[in-house]
Amino acid sequence: MTNLHRHAPLRVALVGLGTVGGGVIRLLQTNADLIARRAGCPIQIVAISARDRNKDRGVDLSPYEWVDDMTTLATRDDIDVVVELIGGADGPALTLARQCLSAGKPFVTANKAMLAHHGLGLAALAEKAGVALKYEAAVAGGIPVIKGMREGAAANEISRVYGILNGTCNYILTTMEKEGRGFDEVLKEAQELGYAEADPSFDIDGVDAAHKLTILASLAFGTELDFDAVATTGIRHVIAADIAEAAALGYRIRLVGMAENGPDGLFQRVHPMLVPLDHPLAHVDGSLNAVVAEGNFVGRLFFQGRGAGDGPTASAVVADLIDVARDEYGDALAMPVAALAQQKPADAGKRVGRAYLRFKVQDRPGVLAEIAAATRDAGVSIESMIQRGANQADGVLVAIVTHAGEERCVRETLDRLAGSDSLLQTPMVMHILD
Amino acid sequence: MTNLHRHAPLRVALVGLGTVGGGVIRLLQTNADLIARRAGCPIQIVAISARDRNKDRGVDLSPYEWVDDMTTLATRDDIDVVVELIGGADGPALTLARQCLSAGKPFVTANKAMLAHHGLGLAALAEKAGVALKYEAAVAGGIPVIKGMREGAAANEISRVYGILNGTCNYILTTMEKEGRGFDEVLKEAQELGYAEADPSFDIDGVDAAHKLTILASLAFGTELDFDAVATTGIRHVIAADIAEAAALGYRIRLVGMAENGPDGLFQRVHPMLVPLDHPLAHVDGSLNAVVAEGNFVGRLFFQGRGAGDGPTASAVVADLIDVARDEYGDALAMPVAALAQQKPADAGKRVGRAYLRFKVQDRPGVLAEIAAATRDAGVSIESMIQRGANQADGVLVAIVTHAGEERCVRETLDRLAGSDSLLQTPMVMHILD
Repeated sequence: MTNLHRHAPLRVALVGLGTVGGGVIRLLQTNADLIARRAGCPIQIVAISARDRNKDRGVDLSPYEWVDDMTTLATRDDIDVVVELIGGADGPALTLARQCLSAGKPFVTANKAMLAHHGLGLAALAEKAGVALKYEAAVAGGIPVIKGMREGAAANEISRVYGILNGTCNYILTTMEKEGRGFDEVLKEAQELGYAEADPSFDIDGVDAAHKLTILASLAFGTELDFDAVATTGIRHVIAADIAEAAALGYRIRLVGMAENGPDGLFQRVHPMLVPLDHPLAHVDGSLNAVVAEGNFVGRLFFQGRGAGDGPTASAVVADLIDVARDEYGDALAMPVAALAQQKPADAGKRVGRAYLRFKVQDRPGVLAEIAAATRDAGVSIESMIQRGANQADGVLVAIVTHAGEERCVRETLDRLAGSDSLLQTPMVMHILD
Repeated sequence: MTNLHRHAPLRVALVGLGTVGGGVIRLLQTNADLIARRAGCPIQIVAISARDRNKDRGVDLSPYEWVDDMTTLATRDDIDVVVELIGGADGPALTLARQCLSAGKPFVTANKAMLAHHGLGLAALAEKAGVALKYEAAVAGGIPVIKGMREGAAANEISRVYGILNGTCNYILTTMEKEGRGFDEVLKEAQELGYAEADPSFDIDGVDAAHKLTILASLAFGTELDFDAVATTGIRHVIAADIAEAAALGYRIRLVGMAENGPDGLFQRVHPMLVPLDHPLAHVDGSLNAVVAEGNFVGRLFFQGRGAGDGPTASAVVADLIDVARDEYGDALAMPVAALAQQKPADAGKRVGRAYLRFKVQDRPGVLAEIAAATRDAGVSIESMIQRGANQADGVLVAIVTHAGEERCVRETLDRLAGSDSLLQTPMVMHILD
């Protein structure tokens, strides 16, 4: 169907040849004809670059020009777009992005950390040069949520956007849930299976999800990216008993990244939440990702799919390339950078909701009364309070579910109990998704 | 933020002032500032047209020029885009679409029937004139599935696309499920509540879902629209006992529009299916819509949201207008019309899967043996067979679940039993989603 191509081939330089880079090469080879029909032209990798030329990547790189100095790509006339898959908030990825966009070279990236930290500046460079800065793969892998927010829901005032943004955490939590096992054991297995990194902290401490949330929030609300304002808690301290208690109450525990915008400011938080069974996020299992956006006309939109892996991520990268080939792109952050609002962070303490609190305490008289008194004095109204495992040698667990109230009261409860020798470890607080 | 607008206002003519038309007006008023920031310019309705000028629509129409003869809109230089919300496959909507696109006027529509029947010709007109033909609201209301297929999943070869495409049917089926009530009773209530039309056949006989499926299939597979090849069965013959049997087996019944593409051709069918509880479609309740696409790199994508109503549909219409304002649009069917494949319809008889069959039979000896013999002679292997309600005066129900086998064998079973006086009514067949 060559006669149907509107344009000369789109010539791509691919920088970074890890799992995703290999996926992009395989995808462009496998679906070449279909992509050419959809894009209006063939999409061809012409140059590649990575740190180590000699590493075996299980994919034939011989058709492509190897470029040692990636900084030459920004100004080469025989390259139409640069795809960055190096990763990292700063360093070579950021240098390359700035060089390309300053030189007017369209830029496609999967780099959520770089965008969360430097997205505003990069969008301004792209805007100034009038070129594409595309990053569908940066959030929720293969799920087209960037497009969903930037375009699909663009007519709406979005009140909140939230979701399950890290597949590793979701795999660990849902495995703990299904098998009744502990965090450390499941994490170790996930590492052995390759589902979690040897150094897992980026995932399990919520940083990766916070990067993605920062990007989603900016698109959803038309506000400047503000990664530093994301309150981030990971899943290290979720124990099997929390999952069991939540299940008994009709909830599942998910690491939720949530952003809300309103007159009181922009609220952004990544933390494990209790999700009611009738909410679609409760049914997002294993390494899947999902995003929910609530708009004032569209209502609740829900997107689910594979949030990581070479295939899904490559799918998003190539979708961006197709948009570039079609000449269907515009402001990276959905509007001119100068039109983005500088929204102040909201005071989380004023948010109203229900919470789950779990204490590990000494097994002795008066401890329940001490906790109950602290909640009372902090103004927390208790919906249920359960003590289990009284026969444990190392203390007992007390789980509380509160009625809806201001979050500051929950914090005050913990402040009042801080230093009490009844508590054997730091209490766990999870908010409940309503 | 007027200084940030890149363009003069986008001037819209709105034709058809029913529920959705009113929604579009309210949305453009309510979110005007946000839309202007996102679109790069204000989006302003300048002219309106409908059949009856004097009808009270509960919305102030005085700011807009009333146009009696909508055919004048196509050539007016002071109108940038025409939005058609009249509906109907043919008639005034089609005339208007052809006039506008022939005259080079961008065209936005929510009209699934028109697109299913005439989409190819309209896309060719838009292509020839180089103008936008946009129709996000035509499928699944507020859910951006047109964009999801056309752009989000564009890098993938899609093997199948399917979903819950009619909110009325899903409301009826899930209400029957939750309340154990019969079809006629729930339909009547849905009509009283305004969830179903006085003449509900378009919805409950699956025609509306078939229109939407036709559009999705073309986008997903790069094939020409082929509405006539959709095998369509509605939900009239689903009875409470089917839902109960399905539940006992671990399934829920949903009206599923499904399209598959492969070497054997294009398969398109709308019919009630048994959906396993671990499939996301099983959790789509009430009037929600959902779409699943399975791609060779992205895996399974799942989109869910409100598929009808003024707010969600207006959200999709205005998203299209924002794309037009941003100048981010291209081929209506994701590629040039000449690049679409003319795919032959697949022989459904060769599809392999499991099925649920339900018979209403005489309560007398030998009937089960007669059914069992027919399945055996047709080559159907039975996984389970249940007879219930032997005390019913008007016959008993026999429900069969087959092992995986070719669908033609199920058809042959019914052919073998046709005319048997053991059967008190036409048997019900539903396939099982795997």
